[in-house]
Amino acid sequence: VTSEVAIGVDIGGTKVAAGIVDSTGTVLATARRLTPAENWHAVRQTIGEAVLELIPRAHALGLDPVGVGIGAAGLVDADRSRVVFAPHLALRGEPIAEAVAKDVGIPVVIENDANAAAWAEWRFGAGQGQSRLVCVTLGTGIGGGMVDDGEVQRGQWGMAGEFGHMVFVPDGHPCECGNRGCLEQYASGNVLGRRARELIAAGAPEVAPLLKRAGGDPAALLGPLITEAAQDGDPLSIELFEQVGHWLGIGLANIAAALDPGMFVIGGGVSDAGELLLGPARRSFAQHLLGRRFRPPAQIKRVALGAAAGLIGAADLALNAPAG
Amino acid sequence: VTSEVAIGVDIGGTKVAAGIVDSTGTVLATARRLTPAENWHAVRQTIGEAVLELIPRAHALGLDPVGVGIGAAGLVDADRSRVVFAPHLALRGEPIAEAVAKDVGIPVVIENDANAAAWAEWRFGAGQGQSRLVCVTLGTGIGGGMVDDGEVQRGQWGMAGEFGHMVFVPDGHPCECGNRGCLEQYASGNVLGRRARELIAAGAPEVAPLLKRAGGDPAALLGPLITEAAQDGDPLSIELFEQVGHWLGIGLANIAAALDPGMFVIGGGVSDAGELLLGPARRSFAQHLLGRRFRPPAQIKRVALGAAAGLIGAADLALNAPAG
Repeated sequence: VTSEVAIGVDIGGTKVAAGIVDSTGTVLATARRLTPAENWHAVRQTIGEAVLELIPRAHALGLDPVGVGIGAAGLVDADRSRVVFAPHLALRGEPIAEAVAKDVGIPVVIENDANAAAWAEWRFGAGQGQSRLVCVTLGTGIGGGMVDDGEVQRGQWGMAGEFGHMVFVPDGHPCECGNRGCLEQYASGNVLGRRARELIAAGAPEVAPLLKRAGGDPAALLGPLITEAAQDGDPLSIELFEQVGHWLGIGLANIAAALDPGMFVIGGGVSDAGELLLGPARRSFAQHLLGRRFRPPAQIKRVALGAAAGLIGAADLALNAPAG
Repeated sequence: VTSEVAIGVDIGGTKVAAGIVDSTGTVLATARRLTPAENWHAVRQTIGEAVLELIPRAHALGLDPVGVGIGAAGLVDADRSRVVFAPHLALRGEPIAEAVAKDVGIPVVIENDANAAAWAEWRFGAGQGQSRLVCVTLGTGIGGGMVDDGEVQRGQWGMAGEFGHMVFVPDGHPCECGNRGCLEQYASGNVLGRRARELIAAGAPEVAPLLKRAGGDPAALLGPLITEAAQDGDPLSIELFEQVGHWLGIGLANIAAALDPGMFVIGGGVSDAGELLLGPARRSFAQHLLGRRFRPPAQIKRVALGAAAGLIGAADLALNAPAG
C-alpha cells in the first residue's frame, strides 16, 4: 500500500463497480451498484453514492483519495468531462464529471472504459513494456484503446479506438450505432447468443444441448452460458467461439494494417473463454495480416487484470491527471 | 532558398522522381528516371544515378545536400533502411538505404511514400497546424500515412498506415496483398478502369463514349482518362467517381472510428478529380461516421502539394533525420 490512492469507477450497461486503487494498481476496497437507466441525474447520484461509500473507507486506511476516474462504455469528449454518446448508458453530453466532483469534493475525470483498460494493462498487466499496445474488449459490444509510447491515444475529439464500429461487411447486420456490418456485430459477446438463436429458429438439432442448458429459454443464451458450455466441450459452443475468433482475427489484422501495434490484449467477458477464442483469433490473424510472409506478427494475449482492468485504469489515470 | 537542402526520391511502380528540396519544402531542381523492374541492383543504380545527377546541380547553387530521403510504395522496416515488401517494386528486404548511401556518399533513409506525403502536407501543405492528420493517397493502389503531434506514426515494425489493406468486404475482390476485399479494391484508381471494363463486358451502352475516348481499347481505360472524361461531363465517368467516393467515405469513417483524426488529406492521381471524388466521399463519410449526430466530423481536403508531396516529404524527413 502506497500513500497515493484514487477511486476508480467502471460504469457498464448493467453494473457500476467502484474501487480504491493505489499507485501499484492494487484494489484496496470495492463498492457496487446497479446502473440506473432513467436519466443522467440518477447516474450521477449512483456514482456519487459509490464514491462516498469508499472515501471514508480510504480514510480508515489512513489514505486520502486524490481524485476519481470514471471509465464509461461510450464516446467521451476530448476534455474527459462528458460522455457524448453511449448506446447503453443514460448519458448524452451532460457535465457528469463536474457534477460528480461537486457531489464528492474531489476532482473527477472521465475516460472511455476500453482506454482505461488499455492503460491498466500497459501499466500493471499483460502489456507492460510495450511501446505500441492495442486493447480490444469483447463484451456486449466491442471497445478499444491504444497506448503508444506511454500515452493513451484519444484522437482529436476523444473518440479514437472504436474498432468495434469499423464497417467490414457492407450492408451487413444492423448495429446500434446506426451503421450496418460493424465488427461488433460479428465478434462480440452478443453474437454468440444471436447465432445460437438463429440455429434454434432454423431447427438445427445440434443446438439442443445448449438450449437445454439454458432451461429451454432462447433468451437465456447469453455469452457466459455459452462460454461455460464451450469449456465443458459442447461442440456447437466451441464452433461459435471459432466463428467469433475468425472474425476477431480479421478485425485485428485490419487494426494492424492501420496501426501496426506490437501487442494486442483482449479483454471483456468473451475473453473468459481463453484459448477457445484466442486460438482461432490468432490463426485467422496470421492468415489475414498484411505482408504476413515478410514481417513479424503482433502478439495476441488475454488481459491480465480481468474485469477490474477498467476500474484500475480509470483510477490510475486520475492519479496521474493534472490537477483539475 | 535556405542553406540546408536534402535530396528527395519518390520511387513509384513506373517512375523515379528525384529533387533537391530546401528546408521550406521548395523543390529547386528535379531528375527523372523510369523504375527498373529487374532486380534491386537495378533499382539501386537508378536511384544512385538520379542522386548523382542532382548533387553537382546543388553544388552549382552553392548548396551541399545533407542526405537523401527515399519514399517508396511499399512496407518499410522500422529502421527505415529496407523495403520489406512492395508489390510493384523489385525490392524484397535488401539493404537499399546502405547501398545507395555507399554509392552517393551521403546518408540515406527510406520512408513509406504515403508517410512521406503525409509529412510534407503537415509541414508545408494542406495539413499545417493539424495535431492529428491522416493522409490517404489514391493511385494504382491506396497508401496511407499519419502525423500525430508532429511525428510520423510508423507503428511497431514501420508498417502502420496501410489503410488500403483493411479488409472490408469479406470474400470480396482478390487483392495483390493476398487477401480479398481490401479497401484498395474498391476505392483506388485501378477500380475506375476495372468497373468500366466490367460494363464493356456486360455490353452496357452507356460505356460507349468512354470506350471511344480510349480509342476502342478497353486496356487504355485508366484513371487519368476516366478523370478527364468525368471533368468533361461524361455521366458514366462521373458515376464511377461517385462509387469510388462512396467507398472511400466508408473507408475514412472506418479510419476515424479507429484514429479520430482532425483532418484527412487525400492525394494520389485519383484526387486530380477534385470535388468529383471528394464531394461523394464527404457525403458518404458523413453518413457512416460513428456518433455522427454527437460529434464534429473530420475535415476532408485534397493535398496541396500534388504529386511532389512524396518527394518533398522524403527529403524533409532526411533533413530532419538524426545523422546516420
